[in-house]
Amino acid sequence: MNLPSPNHALDLRIATAAIASRVETAMRGDLERTLTGCDSLLGEVVHHALFTGGKRVRPLLTVLSSHCCGRDDDDLYLLAAAFEYLHVATLIHDDVIDQATQRRGSATVIARFGLTAAILGGDWLYARSMYLFGHLAGPQGLQIFCKAILSMVNGEFVQLRLACDTTTSKQQYFEVIRQKTGNLIASACALGALFAGADDLRVQALSTYGDLIGAAFQIVDDLLDFQGDSENTGKKTGNDFAEGKMTLPLLHALERADATDRCRIEELLAADRANPASYRQMTALIEHYDGFEAAADTARHLVDQALAALAPFTRAGSVDANVRLLQELARYILIRNK
Amino acid sequence: MNLPSPNHALDLRIATAAIASRVETAMRGDLERTLTGCDSLLGEVVHHALFTGGKRVRPLLTVLSSHCCGRDDDDLYLLAAAFEYLHVATLIHDDVIDQATQRRGSATVIARFGLTAAILGGDWLYARSMYLFGHLAGPQGLQIFCKAILSMVNGEFVQLRLACDTTTSKQQYFEVIRQKTGNLIASACALGALFAGADDLRVQALSTYGDLIGAAFQIVDDLLDFQGDSENTGKKTGNDFAEGKMTLPLLHALERADATDRCRIEELLAADRANPASYRQMTALIEHYDGFEAAADTARHLVDQALAALAPFTRAGSVDANVRLLQELARYILIRNK
Repeated sequence: MNLPSPNHALDLRIATAAIASRVETAMRGDLERTLTGCDSLLGEVVHHALFTGGKRVRPLLTVLSSHCCGRDDDDLYLLAAAFEYLHVATLIHDDVIDQATQRRGSATVIARFGLTAAILGGDWLYARSMYLFGHLAGPQGLQIFCKAILSMVNGEFVQLRLACDTTTSKQQYFEVIRQKTGNLIASACALGALFAGADDLRVQALSTYGDLIGAAFQIVDDLLDFQGDSENTGKKTGNDFAEGKMTLPLLHALERADATDRCRIEELLAADRANPASYRQMTALIEHYDGFEAAADTARHLVDQALAALAPFTRAGSVDANVRLLQELARYILIRNK
Repeated sequence: MNLPSPNHALDLRIATAAIASRVETAMRGDLERTLTGCDSLLGEVVHHALFTGGKRVRPLLTVLSSHCCGRDDDDLYLLAAAFEYLHVATLIHDDVIDQATQRRGSATVIARFGLTAAILGGDWLYARSMYLFGHLAGPQGLQIFCKAILSMVNGEFVQLRLACDTTTSKQQYFEVIRQKTGNLIASACALGALFAGADDLRVQALSTYGDLIGAAFQIVDDLLDFQGDSENTGKKTGNDFAEGKMTLPLLHALERADATDRCRIEELLAADRANPASYRQMTALIEHYDGFEAAADTARHLVDQALAALAPFTRAGSVDANVRLLQELARYILIRNK
């Protein structure tokens, strides 16, 4: 079992808060320089999107990965900020696609500022993140980063294609989440390491770690969409089901279901998925076939593999405090409730 | 007067077609390499957006600018393709914002493939264009490129703010079109020159040329929105008026109008602008105050300035064929009807 110990969890909270604060300082400084003379609405949109909550997971991973490899300076926090810019750009555009009104307990950009501001604000953050990458991480860094974005967009297209498709295999599911989430989280880790001048072994280890916790993170997201408390998560449950997303708990239930229940699941996916009664029935069916527990098991297994991937950093015996934070972060993913 | 001579216009058409063909070959090759293994819908979206017409003005400028400075190889066409990717990404997102159904005489991406595909397809092209820039043009190139994108987005925000604002000054108008169009066209020229290793004088000359023809291009766009033939332009006239854009012909009319007509213009802007009768009345008012002719004069003046900016390339006496093509292209902008 990989549950966080209370002390280590506290260390993680303290370190996370300190890093998030420096990343936020870097973002505010960068925005102040870049947005000077720009339209005030653009500034409002970007600030609203960036500073309304957010777990700062991606920048945290960049910073910790770089720390594990021995670098810590102001530019690192700006590089980390670029990951947050990119992440938030994708969230703004996702909320346009989903016509979502709530994100992190606040109004989404599209709900508050309208369609034009949401599309253009997202585009601005995309461009700014790539600028920072090209500037700070050089051609190799930009290449990793852009490939991760291309892969992420492709993952969204594949997910769209597989919507409501009950023949979706678990392999297809894992491929989608690797493309949508894993690659970018892997590149947040890898680029932190590269930025610190780490050797290939360490870059690869952190990249694998990121890939695996990215997958675990996504599975926990799937679970929260069914089991989360919207007061904690800041968004409505049932979104994935309403969009016909074939998430892991559902795929597990489909795999186990008898013919009658399989038909029932197919009917629920084909009918009005925004209906709360359908959502409740789907939740009960997944529960009946242990879909939630099976998905949670998979997430735990991925976190175990992620911890094993950190071997190049743990072989020496005494484990560096930064590596311990990466370990804690991986374990935290399993118990997060937002 | 800067009207193109028939022979030079023919040279321009032949050169344009040859360059466009090589740019298209570069795009097809790049997409084949990049989209292999990707979702087929993503490929369809990107191909539909890129290969349904398009004047290829931006890549043409990159190629001609580079030719003027002595470089011509395969990578140049890929760099030029990146400008087309970026341009088309902005068009896809613009069509989402405007809910446009027609572009270049075909269905827009949003009309044909839906919202998700349009937002994500645009994001993909943004990311791919930046990847190519970082890869081919180095940090300096990426910096110029990203700054132009940031400025373009800001220009859109300022334009949004000024919608229907009859106190908009011509200076504000020129600032918006410089940010929205001029900067990117200037960077298409500057990056072609930089790619060829040109000195600062030549880079700056081509950048200024691009900035000025970009402004002229936008003014002609304003005119075509009132006076164009939708069979030629491939899009409905009256879009700008419907969106409340304060274009140059309208600003000129506002400047000249007597109190009664000024009130009338304000009323038309405040009422249902999608009404064809309002559009006809607005057109008549602008006509009455010579707004179209004044805007065309301004475009001609900008093209004269653009031609003058090419001085570092024309001082030697005999003018290089590539420089002559840039001159022709500038003149062509004034007589384009699509």
